Amino acid sequence: MSTITLFGLGAMGKALALKYIETGYTTMVWNRSPSKAQPLLEKGALLASTVAEALEAFDLIILCLLDAASVRETVSTATPSLRGKTLVNLTNGTPAQARELSTWSTAHGAAYIHGGIMAVPDMIGSPHAVLLYSSSGGADTFTRIEPHLAHLGTAKFLSADDAGAASLHDLAMLAGMYGLFSGFLHAVSLVKSQSQAGGLTASNFLQELLAPWLSAMTGYLGALAAQIDAGDYATQGSSLGMQVGGMGNIVAASEEAGVSAEFIRPILEGMRRAVEGGYADADVSAVIEFTKLEKGE
Amino acid sequence: MSTITLFGLGAMGKALALKYIETGYTTMVWNRSPSKAQPLLEKGALLASTVAEALEAFDLIILCLLDAASVRETVSTATPSLRGKTLVNLTNGTPAQARELSTWSTAHGAAYIHGGIMAVPDMIGSPHAVLLYSSSGGADTFTRIEPHLAHLGTAKFLSADDAGAASLHDLAMLAGMYGLFSGFLHAVSLVKSQSQAGGLTASNFLQELLAPWLSAMTGYLGALAAQIDAGDYATQGSSLGMQVGGMGNIVAASEEAGVSAEFIRPILEGMRRAVEGGYADADVSAVIEFTKLEKGE
Repeated sequence: MSTITLFGLGAMGKALALKYIETGYTTMVWNRSPSKAQPLLEKGALLASTVAEALEAFDLIILCLLDAASVRETVSTATPSLRGKTLVNLTNGTPAQARELSTWSTAHGAAYIHGGIMAVPDMIGSPHAVLLYSSSGGADTFTRIEPHLAHLGTAKFLSADDAGAASLHDLAMLAGMYGLFSGFLHAVSLVKSQSQAGGLTASNFLQELLAPWLSAMTGYLGALAAQIDAGDYATQGSSLGMQVGGMGNIVAASEEAGVSAEFIRPILEGMRRAVEGGYADADVSAVIEFTKLEKGE
Repeated sequence: MSTITLFGLGAMGKALALKYIETGYTTMVWNRSPSKAQPLLEKGALLASTVAEALEAFDLIILCLLDAASVRETVSTATPSLRGKTLVNLTNGTPAQARELSTWSTAHGAAYIHGGIMAVPDMIGSPHAVLLYSSSGGADTFTRIEPHLAHLGTAKFLSADDAGAASLHDLAMLAGMYGLFSGFLHAVSLVKSQSQAGGLTASNFLQELLAPWLSAMTGYLGALAAQIDAGDYATQGSSLGMQVGGMGNIVAASEEAGVSAEFIRPILEGMRRAVEGGYADADVSAVIEFTKLEKGE
């Protein structure tokens, strides 16, 4: 009989608990407000009345709380109960917070794996839900518990020597997503600015024009990534110098249309810095040399 | 025997001319520096020695020059030769410039179609090259010349009453692309900041994690577009309030890693404005209400 304990019953924590209950695990839950556990208790979950009880019941413990401070605050009320336990912390946070919690947990005798969930709660249990994991203490713990984690989605173990790696890659992917979203919002704002009847709806514009274009450009990211890995930014397409010129038209068209060009300005500034830095003939990949924090920023 | 005249022999103009030559068109070219035409003349192109000669030779005229000013400057040296001609202007520019050139050309007796090329020169002639067209003078001209334009790629006619529509949608798609690129550059900068050995290369990160994630999120844009069309930003996923909180982790992780968060700040500011504007429970689509230019900006 498999057993698991879950801390935190927000939307995601509840989805995780449900998946283990459905899979047949004896599932113990803890939540700051125990009333939130009621629907899970009706499905057979056990409710821990104290943090110590939750930590002591079973060996594998998943944490999905509000933030790193909540994890530390909760678990530190029963520090002695950590010894011999395996913590999988799926709480959102930064790489530094993951490393700190890893060090702290290990010092109290627990094995610590940090995880990042690239999915909404509805997707938990599907192979499309990707969960990133990392550890500062080698790969053995992950290998041992992987069969349990596999119930939640596709598990990817990113580092055996940096517990912060999962958060770093999780946040990097979210940064990529917000770039995509900002481009989408700018594009749709421009299209919607066309006042005459018969203009495309956002859905039609996306389906007929933008989505196929973004898919093609997501393909082109492969060329940019290869350039970055090689440190050689020579372009097979348009040069940065030409692109900076062309972006003037996007800014001008936005202003003509009463649409803010704010989302595009930072990359335009990065491209200008790259051109001034001698990369006028290079591809947009060269901008990566100009995204580092300035000293004193 | 089909005939065509091309103005402009930059990389794109040359690709257009070559495609028509290969397709068997009697192809006349004009370029400010006639020497650039040499490789095309060797393939059978005709060289116009004056703008008037180029305009008068054939009925269908494609312009692919540096910018709108170059078009006006070039063509206005032989204005009387415009009468009865059909101009297809594929020169990059803004919607306002397209509308102005349309009015000007029409006043001189020419039919005017504006176009935007969503492709690099290498793609010309492939169905993956998408060319957007629009006109202020109805659809008849486009319908008449569409068989000639079809040689260049997939033709999409966006408006019969606004010559600016092609540029507007062209620039909107480019804005979407630069959002995608800025997210990619931020994401890769974060991943590359991991100093320990064994970290993922940009190519591996893209292939294993980022590209599938961005493809899934490009799919999610469909939900956002539907919300925008409905004017109802209710989310099926994370609320703006939660997302703004989560983005604090991206900014913090970027600073921890010595990576600039500049690309993400404008959308974060837009999300904060939306939350302050009463959209804390909405999806990120609600940010579109907060991307308009402020008065006096």
